[in-house]
Amino acid sequence: MTTLASEPSVPADARSEGAQARVEFRTHPSRYRHWRLAFDGPVATLTMDVDEQGGLVPGYELKLNSYDLGVDIELHDAVQRLRFEHPEVRTVVVTSGKEKIFCAGANIHMLAASSHAWKVNFCKFTNETRNGIEDASANSGQTYVAALNGTASGGGYELALACEHIMLVDDRSSAVSLPELPLLGVLPGTGGLTRVSDKRHVRRDLADYFSTRSEGVGGKKAVGWRLVDEAVPRSRWDETVARRAAEFAARSTRPDGATGIELTPLAKSRTADEIAYRHVTATLDHGRGCVEITVRGPETGPPGDAAGIHEQGAEFWTLAVTRELDDLILDLRANETELGTWVFRTLGDAERVLAYDALLLEHRDDWLAGEIVLFLKRTLKRLDVTSRSLIALAEPGSCFAGSLLELALAADRSFQLFGVFEDVDSDAEPAAITVGPMNRGPLPMGNGLTRLGTRFHGDDDALAAAEAHAGRPLQAEEAERFGLVTFAPDDIDWADEVRIAIEERSSFSPDALTGLEANYRFAGPETIETKIFGRLTAWQNWIFYRPNASGPDGALRKFGTGQRADFDKKRV
Amino acid sequence: MTTLASEPSVPADARSEGAQARVEFRTHPSRYRHWRLAFDGPVATLTMDVDEQGGLVPGYELKLNSYDLGVDIELHDAVQRLRFEHPEVRTVVVTSGKEKIFCAGANIHMLAASSHAWKVNFCKFTNETRNGIEDASANSGQTYVAALNGTASGGGYELALACEHIMLVDDRSSAVSLPELPLLGVLPGTGGLTRVSDKRHVRRDLADYFSTRSEGVGGKKAVGWRLVDEAVPRSRWDETVARRAAEFAARSTRPDGATGIELTPLAKSRTADEIAYRHVTATLDHGRGCVEITVRGPETGPPGDAAGIHEQGAEFWTLAVTRELDDLILDLRANETELGTWVFRTLGDAERVLAYDALLLEHRDDWLAGEIVLFLKRTLKRLDVTSRSLIALAEPGSCFAGSLLELALAADRSFQLFGVFEDVDSDAEPAAITVGPMNRGPLPMGNGLTRLGTRFHGDDDALAAAEAHAGRPLQAEEAERFGLVTFAPDDIDWADEVRIAIEERSSFSPDALTGLEANYRFAGPETIETKIFGRLTAWQNWIFYRPNASGPDGALRKFGTGQRADFDKKRV
Repeated sequence: MTTLASEPSVPADARSEGAQARVEFRTHPSRYRHWRLAFDGPVATLTMDVDEQGGLVPGYELKLNSYDLGVDIELHDAVQRLRFEHPEVRTVVVTSGKEKIFCAGANIHMLAASSHAWKVNFCKFTNETRNGIEDASANSGQTYVAALNGTASGGGYELALACEHIMLVDDRSSAVSLPELPLLGVLPGTGGLTRVSDKRHVRRDLADYFSTRSEGVGGKKAVGWRLVDEAVPRSRWDETVARRAAEFAARSTRPDGATGIELTPLAKSRTADEIAYRHVTATLDHGRGCVEITVRGPETGPPGDAAGIHEQGAEFWTLAVTRELDDLILDLRANETELGTWVFRTLGDAERVLAYDALLLEHRDDWLAGEIVLFLKRTLKRLDVTSRSLIALAEPGSCFAGSLLELALAADRSFQLFGVFEDVDSDAEPAAITVGPMNRGPLPMGNGLTRLGTRFHGDDDALAAAEAHAGRPLQAEEAERFGLVTFAPDDIDWADEVRIAIEERSSFSPDALTGLEANYRFAGPETIETKIFGRLTAWQNWIFYRPNASGPDGALRKFGTGQRADFDKKRV
Repeated sequence: MTTLASEPSVPADARSEGAQARVEFRTHPSRYRHWRLAFDGPVATLTMDVDEQGGLVPGYELKLNSYDLGVDIELHDAVQRLRFEHPEVRTVVVTSGKEKIFCAGANIHMLAASSHAWKVNFCKFTNETRNGIEDASANSGQTYVAALNGTASGGGYELALACEHIMLVDDRSSAVSLPELPLLGVLPGTGGLTRVSDKRHVRRDLADYFSTRSEGVGGKKAVGWRLVDEAVPRSRWDETVARRAAEFAARSTRPDGATGIELTPLAKSRTADEIAYRHVTATLDHGRGCVEITVRGPETGPPGDAAGIHEQGAEFWTLAVTRELDDLILDLRANETELGTWVFRTLGDAERVLAYDALLLEHRDDWLAGEIVLFLKRTLKRLDVTSRSLIALAEPGSCFAGSLLELALAADRSFQLFGVFEDVDSDAEPAAITVGPMNRGPLPMGNGLTRLGTRFHGDDDALAAAEAHAGRPLQAEEAERFGLVTFAPDDIDWADEVRIAIEERSSFSPDALTGLEANYRFAGPETIETKIFGRLTAWQNWIFYRPNASGPDGALRKFGTGQRADFDKKRV
């Protein structure tokens, strides 16, 4: 194991099959190659100015502000830092540093050369980042405004769609477009279709036409069809953008005079077999195809008030552990595609976990406490859409309570030991799980329900019964009876049952598991988010995999060659 | 063109690529090979007793009451005839004629040998038939009860899930199961996952476990997990089934003393280039990859009262044209996969269409009028989930009004001629479309909204404006202004615009079009139906297409060989 290091490694050919170099999601504005962040009082400007030679992997140039995963890793970092480090910011203007082009979307040559798994994982992360942008507008008082000072096509327009207000320069050439279908034979893969229909309420036949017209739509027509909110002549561009930014800033709920906290470099050690942070350790078991993840509860009690959270900053346990979990999820998803099962354990004092939760919820109107809870919410949502089987194990010494209980509720299956391990410590306290206030609202899933609410969807009595026991540690028998864990084997059966569950999982078709989990994890209502990760993503995955897109004569490979793709015309 | 014939052709090797023989969906109980229908007052019993040698195509035996498309075509016919020919039936008991097995689901060897397009189309039709079963329970007072007198696995259990009440014999060996994932590396493809979670509200972790356990769950555990409604000892089986059937029958809204109408043989002529019925004609244009469909309005006015509908029976225009459309949709989907665009025209008197609509709605509490409207609803829903681009053309002489306007509202794009074709008939009345009562409620889409409501989802003013003009024929300019048609070109532009729309469509990736349409057609809320056709189907299509399922070493091919599938373990 290497020592704890805060410098990210430089990824090389992580994209191709069997590559050794790893993708690293930690970065810092001082290292950005593609984005500039500028601040002017309550308005931040996030300028996309992609370095053509700065691709994450060799083999393509990022022309016309097109992006790859590396560009999006920086965007994600910027959005995250804006929330924690810049509470004074109330409007974020997203614009381009290039002439006449806002953003040309995901780089086609990158997509054409990428493996299926890479494409799908890339789309998932970009989707999460765009959902995070919407979350900032909706919940953090940081409203994103897309200032399209040139054409926004494909993923470029999809980035704009994630903003609350879209301004397009009206210069007879700039347009918004979704050219994926006509030019590339794939779908807009970052929520475009769903946001066009369900967020902006573009009429379906106009949306259909728009999505087949590679040159897009600009000017008044784009406004009339609701594709953008306003078309602004170049002569009035700067002043109008500034005015809109000020208007949105004036409506913000952000407090006056707040001072940000620094998201200090995240200490992490990474080998082929272990990923270790301060509060989280993951053992990579390549033989069994699984990752054993241990999340440790707080070592000390929480500070006494909100000021204490600010003082501790990035060291505050909930924030620290969430950052670690977030990075771990991203690392494993990108770099360890063959480790199909993640096994979660917790270790620590449940009362202390609940005390941290209580402090955060008591001070939820404090901007930082609020941000920490929202960040935890987003990180847990990543788990929900992770294409890995999730298993939670509650053993003696564990602390599945409140915020950490969400890990077990996010799992596809959970086990809680009945009694204790006799030959380890026969006097140990049996494992208990505790429902807390964090399980009852602040951490909704993408479908808008809590994980408890999703679990008991359609069974209000069971939900009420589980919630009625909030605050009380539940040992295995009770937890199983209330439906909070799946199985409660005793010492004699535990090892075999857990082993079989893990081994069996790794014997199944990984594709079928992905589909199964994507369906069972989201019972009940649908939202734009669940539509994007359920319906849209599933169709895109299928299309990406078909020869019409990815085959040697498919549209992705033929793009830019001057040759037409050779389609199998069968409609499926 | 052959003469109008009512005898279905016998399909041969329709399943394999480029095969000539066509699948025929018309059948009659006298020709059933796999189902028996028995009647006992208000209770009908539908017994599945599959003829092992009766596969639709050669190459597999339908053992253990497994099914293929041919078995499901008979089921669909039976469900349809029960509604129209047997209004006295209030409970339909679905059971098996075999010992110890209810139904083993879709035949694996059939799936393994089938093309991707065949598998997907097969699943779509079986899904529609099961949705039709639920529609009968919900809206026709014909409640389906699954009497599982033996194990129901895979599609067998999914058929039970479509019933309102599931009874399982409690004999220590019979179980319900979804073994697709562990045994075949695919998902339950006929709504199983969605109905388990969203209809029966099985807890997600139990559902996950259940779906990985090939032997399934029986007895009290199956009841406790909500997988079935009751487990009944064999000694009390017959009496309990009879009692439940009587109980559901007693709650039915079906009228006393009603007499059914006969669904007489549907006259149809079919060549490689044309499909012709009495009111519907389809020209198959293999060169341009499209089908030109003309639907003719009623030739005479409607009868004066409900009794007149009963007298006309299957000849009543709305019922006749719906049967023809339904058969045409199924025929084209199964047999003409390379004709990717369907172009709809209507011809006739709009007032007369509206008069038929008015008669049906005035007498909607008459069981037959009600059934006709429900059938039309289901047929239009087939269009919504059809993986073909739909274009509607309103020209002079057309009758897109009320029920027929739904064809234009179901279309991805519509054109209405502004003015007339000067060189055809300069004195013609310009094309008009008319919103009627049928557009405002009785024919909802799978998402629960009307097609108008879906079109204007999120824009209540536009919906109100369109509805405010109900009953008034709208010429092109107004129709376009109210957002009821996409484009309104004049005589000079018409031919080019329509030609380009059709040609362009056929130049695009068929896969991307399928994904685009599946997303844009369903704005707004989600239901079990839209989840099945959107999320679940999309994942299944992807899984079906991947080598882990369908490759030479995939699970479908390896099933029954004693060899294990060789999975690419990468999680995507």
